[in-house]
Amino acid sequence: MQRALSEHRSIGNRSNFPNWYQAVVREADMAENSPVRGSMIIKPWGYGVWEQIQKELDRRIKETGHENCYFPLFIPLSFIAKEASHVEGFAKEMAVVTHHRLKNIDGKLQPDPESKLEEPLVVRPTSETIIGDAFSRWVKSHRDLPLLINQWANVVRWEMRTRLFLRTAEFLWQEGHTAHADEADAMAETLRMLEVYRSFAEDCLALPVVAGEKPENERFPGAVATYSIEAMMQDGKALQAGTSHFLGTNFAHAQGIRFQNAAGELELANTTSWGVSTRMIGGVIMVHGDDDGLRVPPRIAPWQVVIVPMLRDVPEDAAIVDYCKTLQQELSHLSVFGEPVRALLDLKPAKAATKRWGWVKKGAPLVLEVGGRDVAGANVSLIRRDRLYREDGKLDSKVVPRDEFLGEATGLLESIQSGLHAEARGRLEANIARDVTDFAGIERAFAEGVKNPGWVEVQWSKPTGAALDAVGERLKALKLTIRNAPMDAAAADGACVFTGASAVERVLVGRSY
Amino acid sequence: MQRALSEHRSIGNRSNFPNWYQAVVREADMAENSPVRGSMIIKPWGYGVWEQIQKELDRRIKETGHENCYFPLFIPLSFIAKEASHVEGFAKEMAVVTHHRLKNIDGKLQPDPESKLEEPLVVRPTSETIIGDAFSRWVKSHRDLPLLINQWANVVRWEMRTRLFLRTAEFLWQEGHTAHADEADAMAETLRMLEVYRSFAEDCLALPVVAGEKPENERFPGAVATYSIEAMMQDGKALQAGTSHFLGTNFAHAQGIRFQNAAGELELANTTSWGVSTRMIGGVIMVHGDDDGLRVPPRIAPWQVVIVPMLRDVPEDAAIVDYCKTLQQELSHLSVFGEPVRALLDLKPAKAATKRWGWVKKGAPLVLEVGGRDVAGANVSLIRRDRLYREDGKLDSKVVPRDEFLGEATGLLESIQSGLHAEARGRLEANIARDVTDFAGIERAFAEGVKNPGWVEVQWSKPTGAALDAVGERLKALKLTIRNAPMDAAAADGACVFTGASAVERVLVGRSY
Repeated sequence: MQRALSEHRSIGNRSNFPNWYQAVVREADMAENSPVRGSMIIKPWGYGVWEQIQKELDRRIKETGHENCYFPLFIPLSFIAKEASHVEGFAKEMAVVTHHRLKNIDGKLQPDPESKLEEPLVVRPTSETIIGDAFSRWVKSHRDLPLLINQWANVVRWEMRTRLFLRTAEFLWQEGHTAHADEADAMAETLRMLEVYRSFAEDCLALPVVAGEKPENERFPGAVATYSIEAMMQDGKALQAGTSHFLGTNFAHAQGIRFQNAAGELELANTTSWGVSTRMIGGVIMVHGDDDGLRVPPRIAPWQVVIVPMLRDVPEDAAIVDYCKTLQQELSHLSVFGEPVRALLDLKPAKAATKRWGWVKKGAPLVLEVGGRDVAGANVSLIRRDRLYREDGKLDSKVVPRDEFLGEATGLLESIQSGLHAEARGRLEANIARDVTDFAGIERAFAEGVKNPGWVEVQWSKPTGAALDAVGERLKALKLTIRNAPMDAAAADGACVFTGASAVERVLVGRSY
Repeated sequence: MQRALSEHRSIGNRSNFPNWYQAVVREADMAENSPVRGSMIIKPWGYGVWEQIQKELDRRIKETGHENCYFPLFIPLSFIAKEASHVEGFAKEMAVVTHHRLKNIDGKLQPDPESKLEEPLVVRPTSETIIGDAFSRWVKSHRDLPLLINQWANVVRWEMRTRLFLRTAEFLWQEGHTAHADEADAMAETLRMLEVYRSFAEDCLALPVVAGEKPENERFPGAVATYSIEAMMQDGKALQAGTSHFLGTNFAHAQGIRFQNAAGELELANTTSWGVSTRMIGGVIMVHGDDDGLRVPPRIAPWQVVIVPMLRDVPEDAAIVDYCKTLQQELSHLSVFGEPVRALLDLKPAKAATKRWGWVKKGAPLVLEVGGRDVAGANVSLIRRDRLYREDGKLDSKVVPRDEFLGEATGLLESIQSGLHAEARGRLEANIARDVTDFAGIERAFAEGVKNPGWVEVQWSKPTGAALDAVGERLKALKLTIRNAPMDAAAADGACVFTGASAVERVLVGRSY
């Protein structure tokens, strides 16, 4: 049976990528701008994706020995000042609380001058300082180490130009903070969490990423080493989807995190921090979206199967609803990716075709339509979101015996998950040029008019200081940055594309969000 | 085998209840004060309890048809002003953001005067106004109703005198906000969520509560009716553990939430809101704690069974650890309260006795100690947190064959859960006096020197306006308030204890947190 394409307006193609992105976020009903400048409202489908991300990532964070805590939203200005004094380039755009009372003065509600705080409070842009302060009290002995803490929280960084999920003043994230007895243990932790992020992105978000070390000029301020996972969007740009920082003793020194070692001497701890945010959702949209909207990988889809009954406001509707309810229950008793299948029976009052296309735009992996004929024949009409159209361009809605569908439902979800990953992995591989051996090659790769240029992997001599700044400037002129030095890149065996000196490693260069 | 009581210092008795409470929070390592005035740090054991509360309550909120969203932390001052203008007594103690940048001026980091916001932002004390604004955009037609939204978030209410979990400037909560086509549907929702809270408190927190309607003078500002669940602490005071508000069209009017009904006419929606917070954890502590610290009901215990190996830094330790690991895995494969048993093997570097008492103070429901003799005999030494001592006052640690323990573990957890509930239920019933028929009786019940007076249930004529204010003043002089009018109270059949007029219902009177 073939369903009509009427009522469907596709999102449009990706030639104007920013417009397409905005349209997908809106049409998939993921989020919207709020009346508060730069802050978004995350709507149920977007928040549902975040909940799936949280659940699975939280499981992996706990599995690696971390415990969740909650630290204050507000940070005393003096804590930031301490940080600012030893870290050059500390971001200063943050929300500052200066008063604690509103008062009606001359008929106008305003901050009560008498409630001015002695010390202003900053809304946390990140919690290094306030957690570091707690660590300095909690860590006494080497027996208290390692101290492995994670926090799920909202953070605020004032931003002038915002884009839903990708860059907003307030966003949601998790931030891990750990303290260790020695450098080796802290470095092992840094890389362990990088690997947790890498495997989570690949397995759950179906997001192929490259894990590697950031160059010195892209490090988190104060970090000894910063690692990232970088994903490639469909416009070829990179999205930094997660970072893991080895902080050495820098932060422990600033915050006084000292412990008595086995020999009874006081030592500075080595610390790490690592985080991912709702930004990841922007990455999922820009990697898996298509002309019809979003395609959510089944592992993070709030609903993996949506059942749309085709009702006509007639007495026969009851039998269709009953049939769908049974189907929904049977699906919920199946297990996929180690969890019960998440199946929704959509009984909202709207036309079936409207609902069908709504779920297509939202990217629910499987949509079932059930009408009177399906019930009579013990069938369902099945739409796979990853293969929406037949070769002739018509909607690929297949009538399948319901029992056959129940038998293959979890396999279909697994196949959609791996299919989305394979498609994105293929695109990533196809868009990393590894044959660029000089700077002119970089200029050619990113010349004006080159469509979705992707990334180039080049060899470099890893310059530092002023020499690195010079490299940064040359790249900046092309709107490029070094994304990272991939952990799994081949060894260097040639000359540095920037300095001509002998190369020591390979790095990825590209445009980014 | 009897373990020594050495190394154990009990928390102390509950005669000085506030001191005892503070000591339990500290010794159970639930939370601590932070350097930010009035804001707490929730530590892993405290946050773990919150995570269990969230997981189970979230399931029930979704089961009743609600979807989670996330709304901005900041609320424009104009939104609050709109609210303040139509609501008398609107709380004005809130954190106000006035600047968005820090700058080093004369060597001192401070709010940059040039970054002053045109309109100050308030850190949400609750989200009625910002969610109402979204609802006014989302609700167009009767087909959009009911709109059933929930949010898990941090909120801030400036408080002068704070107490961990019970009253802090920042706390964590969920807030439900719904809009309905008519009054009956909104009222049904209000009572449905009250019942969700009541059954959740009883089933999961083992907290006996009384559900009922608040008197007019205790309503949420702007609400048409406010309902609460009230729990009785061990000092006899009431803790309001959750509220559900029927807002009628008051908020819809202020925020312009209108819809086109089936006849094509514009109507105001009826709205509700309801919430519970980390305050609930304070209630759990004050209801279930004892002289040895906290007792966490198994359904919300982050770890339900903790295994403490008795190691002596000798090669034989390895066999003990292996034995414990197997035990931990076998426990994790059992199911209780519909979930896998949460069993921890505590391998932290500390003496077994220290760890044992640590878990007793934290209130883990079952603690197993395993030494070489236990391994040799295929036994475990079992401590039940709810029955810590034998009649002779010695620690009741029983040697049990491990297989026998595995067979009865889930039953033990169920029995601890129901035992804690029964104990608290008995105390609640024993401490509500129902024989008070005049105001003098109230004065006697709460006279100075009466220890843990509990509550009285009295009949009243439900006065309003000035007459109600007068009742409030008389009660206030005794530090009392009307808690609520219990849903399941007997019908009134006498005279009002306050006015002498014919009574219309029964209300609970008591002291409160």
